[in-house]
Order: sequence, then C-alpha cells, then structure tokens
Amino acid sequence: MKLLLKNGTILATECGNFRCIKDGFLGIDGNKIDYIGEKRPEAVYDEEKDMSGCLLAPGLINCHTHTPMTLLRGVGSDLPLHEWLFDKVFPIEDRLTAAEIRAGNNLALLEMIACGTTSYSDMYFEPQTAAENAMAAGIRANLCRPVQCFDEKERYEDNQRAKESIELFHAYHGAANGRIRIDFSIHAEYTCTESVVRGYAADCNALGGRMHLHLSETKQEQEECIKRHGKTPAAWFRDLGVFDSPTAAAHCVWLTDSDMEILREKSVSVIHCPTSNLKLGSGFAPVPKMQKAGLNITLGTDGAASNNNLNMMEEIHLASIIHNGYTLNPLVMKPAEVLKMATVNGAKLQGRSDTGSLEAGKKADIIAFDLRRPHLIPDFDPLALLVYSAQGSDVCMTMVDGKVLYENGEFLTIDREKVIAEAKAAVKHLYG
Amino acid sequence: MKLLLKNGTILATECGNFRCIKDGFLGIDGNKIDYIGEKRPEAVYDEEKDMSGCLLAPGLINCHTHTPMTLLRGVGSDLPLHEWLFDKVFPIEDRLTAAEIRAGNNLALLEMIACGTTSYSDMYFEPQTAAENAMAAGIRANLCRPVQCFDEKERYEDNQRAKESIELFHAYHGAANGRIRIDFSIHAEYTCTESVVRGYAADCNALGGRMHLHLSETKQEQEECIKRHGKTPAAWFRDLGVFDSPTAAAHCVWLTDSDMEILREKSVSVIHCPTSNLKLGSGFAPVPKMQKAGLNITLGTDGAASNNNLNMMEEIHLASIIHNGYTLNPLVMKPAEVLKMATVNGAKLQGRSDTGSLEAGKKADIIAFDLRRPHLIPDFDPLALLVYSAQGSDVCMTMVDGKVLYENGEFLTIDREKVIAEAKAAVKHLYG
Repeated sequence: MKLLLKNGTILATECGNFRCIKDGFLGIDGNKIDYIGEKRPEAVYDEEKDMSGCLLAPGLINCHTHTPMTLLRGVGSDLPLHEWLFDKVFPIEDRLTAAEIRAGNNLALLEMIACGTTSYSDMYFEPQTAAENAMAAGIRANLCRPVQCFDEKERYEDNQRAKESIELFHAYHGAANGRIRIDFSIHAEYTCTESVVRGYAADCNALGGRMHLHLSETKQEQEECIKRHGKTPAAWFRDLGVFDSPTAAAHCVWLTDSDMEILREKSVSVIHCPTSNLKLGSGFAPVPKMQKAGLNITLGTDGAASNNNLNMMEEIHLASIIHNGYTLNPLVMKPAEVLKMATVNGAKLQGRSDTGSLEAGKKADIIAFDLRRPHLIPDFDPLALLVYSAQGSDVCMTMVDGKVLYENGEFLTIDREKVIAEAKAAVKHLYG
Repeated sequence: MKLLLKNGTILATECGNFRCIKDGFLGIDGNKIDYIGEKRPEAVYDEEKDMSGCLLAPGLINCHTHTPMTLLRGVGSDLPLHEWLFDKVFPIEDRLTAAEIRAGNNLALLEMIACGTTSYSDMYFEPQTAAENAMAAGIRANLCRPVQCFDEKERYEDNQRAKESIELFHAYHGAANGRIRIDFSIHAEYTCTESVVRGYAADCNALGGRMHLHLSETKQEQEECIKRHGKTPAAWFRDLGVFDSPTAAAHCVWLTDSDMEILREKSVSVIHCPTSNLKLGSGFAPVPKMQKAGLNITLGTDGAASNNNLNMMEEIHLASIIHNGYTLNPLVMKPAEVLKMATVNGAKLQGRSDTGSLEAGKKADIIAFDLRRPHLIPDFDPLALLVYSAQGSDVCMTMVDGKVLYENGEFLTIDREKVIAEAKAAVKHLYG
C-alpha cells in the first residue's frame, strides 16, 4: 500500500537538521517513507490523505518509563520519598498480578499514543505482557525485566530475574517485524551486587544486547555509592563491564565531570526525565554540560507514579525551558536540539536508527499536530511552536510503521473502553 | 434561572481548605453558587446538568499577561533577550493598530477560556479593545494601560499614558456587572521616572484603584535599580507611595529578604510566572521563601511572546514541581497551595473576593475537567490529579458568572472562526 500525505507542514530532516516544508508531500510505501518534498511526487500512490492545517513531525520516543505504574498515579503525593516508596508504592506493587500489570500497560498505551509517542522503553516486571500489548497495539517498544539482587552471597547463575530477562530476550527480541526489542536491565547500583552485575553484563555483551539502567538519580545515591565502593555509580558500572554494551542511563542528575567523560568514552546514552527529577526533588540534570560533552541525550517521562503522566510534550516543554532558567541563559537550549532529544537521539538509544526522523528511507513513524487550534496561531516558526506552545492533546494522528494507530480522538488498534474498564477493575482490586 | 450541576466530583472550599465531594451537587442561582453538598438540595432548580465523570473546580485566574502578544507568538525564539525585544518585539508592537490589538486579544480569549481561565489581568496598549471583547465574551478581566516615561523633565500632568489610564478607569471600571475592572499600572522601575510614578501613585490612591506592575524580574533590573537609586525596585516603589494602593507585582524573581518584608508589610501580591521566567533565563522566583514570609502568591502566564501560550494548567504544573527540584525537597510545594495560587489568591489580587473558590455565596466561576481521559485514571486524589496530571485540554466546560462560555470544544459566546480569521489577517499584515 502506498499512501501520500499531502498539503501538510512537514518537519523534515536534511543532513541532520530540521527543514520545514510548507504545503508539502510525504509519501509512504508500506512501512517506510519513500518521498518528502515541496512538489507532488511523480510516483502513483494508492491513497491520498489531506493534511492541510497539520504539522507532520517524527513520532516521539519515550526512553524511560514504567508503564504499569499508571495504576499508581497520584498515590501518596504528599509523602516524603522514602515513605512514598516503602509505605505506598512497594506494597501495592507486591500485590500486582500479571493481568493487572497488563491492564496498567494498556492504559499507558492509550495515553502515550494519544500524545504522539510512537516508541517507548519500559522497565518493569512481567514485561511479556507489555510485549503482547505492543504487538496488538502497533506501537514500538524496547522492553526489559530489571535485575536486582540484595544478597551478596547469591551467585549470578542463581539470580531468578536475570534468568527471566534472558528468557524474555530469546522469546520476544525482534518480534512483530522488529517493533519489539528486548533490552537487558540492571535496576541501579544501589539495588544490585557486584557479582550479579558482572555476570549479567557479560551475558548482555555476549548476546549483543543493550542495557537500560538508573544512574545517579539522587544526591544520596551518588554519595552512598562512593562510600560503598569508593567510586561513583558510573565508574562502578564501567569497571564491571556494563558499559561494554550500548547502555541507556536514566536520570543522570548528579554526574560528575569525570562521570560524563566515562559516558562519552563508552557511548552511553543519557535519558533526561525533567518532570520526575523536579517533582521528586532530585534536582536538575546538567543537560547543557552533557551536551557540550557530546553525549547522546534523550527524553523520558519516568513512571506515572512520579510524573504523573506519560506526556512527552511536557518533557519537551520542560527540557526546553528549565535549563535556561537554571543557567540564567535564554539561549542554552535550542528548540531543534530538544526535538532531537525526543526523536532521533531516542532512536539511537533504542537501537532503531531506521526511525526518529522524517526522511526518505526511514520507517513511517509520524505524528500530526492540529495547527488550527487557537494557541498554535500564528505558525511561522513550527519548530518553536511544537517545543514551546503545543500540547500533547494537539496530536491529531499517530502513525507507526506506516499504520495509523490514533486519529482525531479515536484509537484504531486498541479498544479504549475495554482497556479503561480493565484498568478501573485493577484499581478497585488494588485499593479496595 | 436556577441550575443544578449533579453527580460531579467537586473541589469545594470549606474553612479555607479544599474538600473533595464525590457524586455531589452544586446549585447555581443566577450568577452565584447557592448550594454545594453530597445530598440533593431541597430547593427546586429550573434545569439540571449531569456532570458524571467530571471534576468541578474553581475557574483559573491568570494574574499577569499581555494578551494581544498572541500575535507575536514564536517571534525571534532564538535571539538573546535584548535583540529579541528591541529588534523584533518593539518594532512589531509599533506597527500594531487598535483593530489588530483587539484581534490578538480575542485570539487570547479563545485560548484562555478553552483552558479554564475565567478571569485575567492584562497589561497592554488600547485596553478599551480588551474591555469591549470581555464584555461580549463573558470573561472577567482586570485591565490596565501601563504608564511609562523616559523623559526626566516630563511633568506627571503631561504624561499622556497616565491620562489614558485614568480615562479608562472612569469609562470602564465596574462595567458588565463588575466583570470588568480597570487597574492602574506602572510598567516597571526601569521604564518610569520618579515624578511620574509619584503623581500617578497619588491619583491611584485617591481614586481607590489597584496597581499592576513588573517587579524584580531580572538580575540586571535589580542591580541597575540599586545603582540608579541606591535601593531595590521594591523599596523605590514603596518610597514613592505606590504600595499604598493594593498592588500586584509580576515576576519577583530577584527579591531580597528585605524586599519580601516590604511586600508583606504593604500587602503586595506576587504574581509567579514560571514559564516566562524559565524560558527567558530570568531565574527561579523564591516561592517557598515568599510563602513562608506570608505573601499572597498568585500565578500568571505572562504574554504569549515569552511563554509561548496562555495555558494556566502549565503554570500550575510548573509551580508544583520546579521548586521541589530547586530546593531538593519533594514536599516544598503542596498541591493545595498551588491550586490556591491559581484561584483564590488570584481573586484576592484582583479585588474579587467573591470569586476564586467553590462555596455557597461565591460567584459561579466554575470549570469542569473530563476525568474519563486515560491520563486521569485512577482518580482517587482529584487535587493531585488536577495539579500533576491534568492538561488545559482536559477542561470540558468553562462557566463565568453562571453562564457557560465553553463546552466540549465549542465556544458559546465567541465566533471562533471569525476571531481566527481576524487574527490571521492581522498576522499577515504585520509580517507580510
């Protein structure tokens, strides 16, 4: 099937930079973009879709979340971090069944797809449920089962979570024509032992996997690691071989200059999660400094328990303004760089270099914004409009792999009412 | 006309605190709330409206904006502050006609009403156009014509802007059954002379007016004022009698401790504008400190040229999380306090103590959020949901003075297409 999107404003990528094409044409052949330009292409398309009044942009890539935590949205909002986690979040998570985890993930898919997310990286228990959901819903997903170990005596070979993680890799990696990828995952330095990390990192490397972990999220984490190991979390992970596989490090709020140098040397990607870092009082990730250090910086929402939603347009907005305020420099974050963080940089992190930008030859992961909304007028700078003015709710179409998943409020691959009913039933069971 | 809103979740106010009523009843008699409770009221209502699945909250009050600057949305996004203002913004503003200013204000009304703003405080040229628009649209508006003077020799009596401001007061103050209020306004310390400020402040006081001004927005403003006058802007305004009238001070990013003491003594209200302060690299207003000092803190969007929208739900979101991050304390901003900033505190600033909360006897300025959206599930803590998860686009009804202005995407008092066409025509004229 060949589909031509016509008359839209297109945020295309040329030579690594955005170029805005007004009243343009974007051709799709199957699941790939085959044409972008001002002029109507010569090739014949089976179908044409009028995108007048719309801004076409690359789909957003949410590089760090815990989707089933939608069911914990708003839990213990007024509690200190430790009480929130130990008295509220963990006991509820202990009660979660696989069916509830699946319901929570499906609720997250509704939210993410409606706000223009076309691919996401998830870290949670029972990730096979997310794999099945993603296959049905048509979204891209990098999934992982995070490894933890609190028993210094446990041998890597006996770690049940690592086993599950590797089984998952063999069962689902590359499924749904590559839409599903399975990553390896160590939860964090403070939740894992040296021997388990070392063994698991070696297996990840041997199997050609990618690693997803939490890194230097809080000051306490950074300081306690130095006390425990005599080095920072980044140095500890590097020394255990973790960074020998392509790694995605979430948060990175408290990185030192030498940590940044480690991440640069080992090509570790950073996931900036501004809402979560601010709400939880973790602090400001040194994004302008990390940019100068040449790191690949991406964006993530974190889970809905600490965000409290999964709206990448909010992360784009925050990333574009908070560092200006923090450095007292209104030019420190460029709109184009922030949009790259949410798209092409995320694609690189996920190992999906065939996605993340609107270019002929790339996968057709495309979102459309409705520029007829009052707050998107005038529209002479679509890039600034997208970054500073637009809302997640301005997304009027979400397409993944050439297939429309969402359009004008309707979900085409998910039964919205069923998913909401299942999520509400899970909430009722969990909280009584 | 008596109207009963039934079956909604109501964020009512009792003894100054929010109380959440599930499946409640809210009765309206004319333009006032006459009942709130769990039980159906005994009185008979002419009409009943089912609000199942909705959260009813007090209308949002945007305490600082420059509405016609919607026409400058996105202008010069990548320029340093001085070039942005002097090379882009000011030359465009010089070309603006009264008709264009009116078109820009009307575009702003669409945006604000759709996002739940029921009252706003505006500072711009030709404010009579905004008064006429507000009378027609049904929104509340505190309008002012900012006074400036760069000529040290000009006598107060000869200042044309001050004259316009006072004429405006006499022409429109209290119009539309009090929906329109006219405030006095000094643009800022750095744009006005001592003699004009002194004379105007005396007139404001004599006429029982309220003052609206910019205060300590940037580090440069604070430092240059001290060089110029040997005192901070807050001390300068106090010494010239400005704060003898109820005053609304926008930004307050660089207030010193003794400035806060001045504001407390003189009951000056603070308008926190987080998006604008961050985007322009002005910094972080010391909101937690100002709260401790007992100041009345409100929220504002500032103009669309520096925001770049007029969405109070974004200001609520930012105010609720950025100070946690800045102070490394996740509990420093309470959701209830942030919602008060956006509602009842704003009402106090505007001199509208009969608005700003859902209580029997208050004006019926009510907004509804659609809780059936996926990102608003589960809903066991509606206050946290509103502050951390909800979007401006979740507003499904906006009511002012008992009259519905907006419902489910439709504007009932403004011709949306006409306003958009006029705004686009103005943009075309301004930018060619």
